[in-house]
Amino acid sequence: MTLALLGGRPAFDKKLDIVRPVLPRLEALAPRFQEALASGQVTNMGPHSRALEAALAAYVGVKHCAVFCNGEAALIAMLQAARLPRGAEVITPAYTFSGTAHGIAQNGLVPVFADIHPETWTLDPADAEGRITSRTAAILAAPLYGNPADNDALADLAARRGVRLFFDSASGCGSRYGGRPLGGFGEAEMFSFHATKVYLTMEGGALCTNDPALFEAATMIRNFGKNGREADCEFVGFNGKMTEVCALVGLELLPGLDAVVEHRNRVAERYQQGLRGIPGLRHQRAQRGGVSSWLYYQFLVDEEAFGLTRDELIMALTAENLAARRFNFPCNHQLSCYRHLGTPPVLPAAEHVASHSVALPLYSDMTMDEVDRVTACVRAVHEERDAVRARLRRPVGVGA
Amino acid sequence: MTLALLGGRPAFDKKLDIVRPVLPRLEALAPRFQEALASGQVTNMGPHSRALEAALAAYVGVKHCAVFCNGEAALIAMLQAARLPRGAEVITPAYTFSGTAHGIAQNGLVPVFADIHPETWTLDPADAEGRITSRTAAILAAPLYGNPADNDALADLAARRGVRLFFDSASGCGSRYGGRPLGGFGEAEMFSFHATKVYLTMEGGALCTNDPALFEAATMIRNFGKNGREADCEFVGFNGKMTEVCALVGLELLPGLDAVVEHRNRVAERYQQGLRGIPGLRHQRAQRGGVSSWLYYQFLVDEEAFGLTRDELIMALTAENLAARRFNFPCNHQLSCYRHLGTPPVLPAAEHVASHSVALPLYSDMTMDEVDRVTACVRAVHEERDAVRARLRRPVGVGA
Repeated sequence: MTLALLGGRPAFDKKLDIVRPVLPRLEALAPRFQEALASGQVTNMGPHSRALEAALAAYVGVKHCAVFCNGEAALIAMLQAARLPRGAEVITPAYTFSGTAHGIAQNGLVPVFADIHPETWTLDPADAEGRITSRTAAILAAPLYGNPADNDALADLAARRGVRLFFDSASGCGSRYGGRPLGGFGEAEMFSFHATKVYLTMEGGALCTNDPALFEAATMIRNFGKNGREADCEFVGFNGKMTEVCALVGLELLPGLDAVVEHRNRVAERYQQGLRGIPGLRHQRAQRGGVSSWLYYQFLVDEEAFGLTRDELIMALTAENLAARRFNFPCNHQLSCYRHLGTPPVLPAAEHVASHSVALPLYSDMTMDEVDRVTACVRAVHEERDAVRARLRRPVGVGA
Repeated sequence: MTLALLGGRPAFDKKLDIVRPVLPRLEALAPRFQEALASGQVTNMGPHSRALEAALAAYVGVKHCAVFCNGEAALIAMLQAARLPRGAEVITPAYTFSGTAHGIAQNGLVPVFADIHPETWTLDPADAEGRITSRTAAILAAPLYGNPADNDALADLAARRGVRLFFDSASGCGSRYGGRPLGGFGEAEMFSFHATKVYLTMEGGALCTNDPALFEAATMIRNFGKNGREADCEFVGFNGKMTEVCALVGLELLPGLDAVVEHRNRVAERYQQGLRGIPGLRHQRAQRGGVSSWLYYQFLVDEEAFGLTRDELIMALTAENLAARRFNFPCNHQLSCYRHLGTPPVLPAAEHVASHSVALPLYSDMTMDEVDRVTACVRAVHEERDAVRARLRRPVGVGA
């Protein structure tokens, strides 16, 4: 193939976006949604939201599940419900979606950024342990785009050091660790069901826990902190309620989730095979004992071996009408909004992954042909690396 | 009529609830919603959310409008976007929905509760002025269930004392002041579009402002604080995005809003007429220069003149299958979650209204016959006050 960057026709006529959400058809929801519209019961924890909570609790295998308007609301409520002392430190991975850190800071807590494991890209338990001080109240770990963290090591660390353990599993619904679905680890765990996620409700999220007190507190916080004594509020809460129509989408998609995750694992395997042998690509390693739901397919680009930088590869793929993305760049410890915390720590693995990783699209309905065409593009970019480099790197100075 | 409490048949066979949301039929939304489901563009500020923002900005007459997942998210973002100094005081009415105070506290600011005007039940500008100190950063005023605050006096106060002015107009979309729709007062104003509101999107909210910097900041905060430089965040933001299906509901209902408000004013007038002459009822006064959207119909009950307490009237009406409610009881300055602020101030008007007010249902599709049947119930309760009192007040002590 002639690369589009070098004058060829783009490999994809229609853009292959970074996500392609698979949603139910309206017919599947219509009777129940029409009834909700007619009755006016379209929110405030109506029957469909309650049904989704029950279905999710059963799926995950936890005693309690509370659905939310989105994952960030579930995260903020989870940490508020945990009643961590104001101003305490919470250790969290530097390389993950910024919302993880924000959930800590939104609660008046201090995020302490720890490094990630260089292969799984999830929180490195050893680095986290090194950051525990007398001010540490909790660890907030996270799967990385579906890849579970080292949950056993984290549970062991939390128990040994007397630190509480929570999970921001925004990307984790459908993933597994130790044979169990994510959602049941630590004291509590939350999911995002945003349209970009493997399991989605358009917008939505959920908190899962076996702790009845934490659950009850979170449901109060979801409803402005109201404690059931009329207008009285036990917490400075907010509105975290899910709409009934989002719950209906979730109820439609949950029975198919495991099959979706299986398909995504086949797609990931196909990616791995298709990219095999291309020099300079280091693939994100699936967590030992874990099953990832593969939100994206990700690898690191080594400039010397591949012949181009990560950003040059992305530019060449973009020209093919193929969304290749860099995520979490900059890392959370380098975000402008955390400047007030002082000089950010040096976190080599997180910074390396942030500056060398590429995410490729991985859909619930992706065909193997699509995967093959994507991997062919990556291979072609490598093969044409000299021409691509010449095209992208303009000479320094005139006449040089 | 024989009151249900005294053995009669309830006045309403089907419960007359406190709200009866009027939503579009699914057919009106179906083609656009189905297209959104098929394309996967169901959130993240898609075309329908953008269209709703433009329509609302035009309706309100402001330069900028940002829609949110709910009103509380819009409020939290509004105050965060205002960049008030952390720990500063914000003066706010004690008698209003608790979410108003929470929006302040969620931002690490201190709510300072002020009293309300005893007739309009909205923030008393004189009492607010008396609470201004060197720590005061802003006033957060609010219409009370559709009834506008004394916006002119508040604008004058803010200008004279160099204090910033914002409005939590959760209940205010469709109301007017000085001939203009609420939404364009103070530095910024937000709405709730919750299913219980006069204008509704199932769940939703919006921020209206003429300040481009505040608007831009609020839209960043709505999207995790992202400032457009890839993953970098200028603010510790959250997810405040509205779903496309909620925006579609809003687009359907906005053209009819003024007619809805006119009808609700006719219903309120009918209530006033129907309750005329019943001793001991003091009706909430519409703000001078304002048009209320009448979320509920409200009055105070004077026990001596009416012959029963507020709570006894509510019990008698509840028996008629008619939702009569007390709201904001306790007041915000008395909420458990604000205990840490120290001994609450004594705010006579707010406390009196909280302990003497009744809210009656007022729907966008309420018939005059329904109103007449409700007012007949109130009148009958007054007429049978002695029997009701005897029924509800059990003798103190045995044989007394």
